[in-house]
Amino acid sequence: MPKTQARPHGGEPTERVPHRAARNDFRWDGVEMRPYKEDERALYKTITRQVLFSDPGMAGELRYFEVAPGGFSTLERHEHMHAVLILRGRGHCLVGEEVRAIETRDLVTVPAMTWHQFRATQGEPLGFLCMVNAARDKPQLPSPEDLAKLERNARIAAFLRDEPQA
Amino acid sequence: MPKTQARPHGGEPTERVPHRAARNDFRWDGVEMRPYKEDERALYKTITRQVLFSDPGMAGELRYFEVAPGGFSTLERHEHMHAVLILRGRGHCLVGEEVRAIETRDLVTVPAMTWHQFRATQGEPLGFLCMVNAARDKPQLPSPEDLAKLERNARIAAFLRDEPQA
Repeated sequence: MPKTQARPHGGEPTERVPHRAARNDFRWDGVEMRPYKEDERALYKTITRQVLFSDPGMAGELRYFEVAPGGFSTLERHEHMHAVLILRGRGHCLVGEEVRAIETRDLVTVPAMTWHQFRATQGEPLGFLCMVNAARDKPQLPSPEDLAKLERNARIAAFLRDEPQA
Repeated sequence: MPKTQARPHGGEPTERVPHRAARNDFRWDGVEMRPYKEDERALYKTITRQVLFSDPGMAGELRYFEVAPGGFSTLERHEHMHAVLILRGRGHCLVGEEVRAIETRDLVTVPAMTWHQFRATQGEPLGFLCMVNAARDKPQLPSPEDLAKLERNARIAAFLRDEPQA
């Protein structure tokens, strides 16, 4: 395990409240929902973030991301790992060289420095929990060369073009 | 945040698999379910544990606990925090001096050295995710004096006797 550092990229700690009631539609009392702005390079689309747990006493953070029907998360990589549990809906994910169909409650591990992206189906939102180290590096976006390299794999190219998966 | 130490109480890392499919009834492919033995002091009852994420690259662990209808988790406290998301069912929890009704997807934070316990309703299992630091101390169980002190609070006493909550 890497040494714990200051939080070079971790979010602000959330207020510590003993109990937060769930609200309708995968929201929580007192948890801010941050919509991501659309990215002009279309690296992500219609995704929101809610930080469920972030506390100076905890070495991990737990966030909830929700991708609207047909949307997708950022295509990125970083040194820190992601531990993901699908909480709502279904879709596909890219992790390294692998494209996988994902269903509610599936678990996905994203190792260090591995390109990854989550895509919702057209029919419903894809919501997932993501555990990360509180102290973590900033995500890297793919260069045009990185993208060209990924697209040499036909299955990855189809995934990135959002074509239906076999 | 406390310094990261060796894992004095953290579990064995789980095998790193990119994708684990969810199975029926809140099980996961390749994740061992550990039933707890009944405790002769009745500090916990009919609860199972599945370690969903535990990896040398992650400072946190994510576990899934499931309490059978009418069952309850260990009444304990420790220096490390718990960050809990109710994944299935409903019940009540004790955190410090507070007894709260909990519903699916509610969030519960257990601060350091705070007595806590989760109880399922009679009708269905109570399942919850629990994020902890990988490096953490061992739980402490209440002494008879600790229990007597807790029971001086009528609401806590009723919770511990598993009486219906107001």
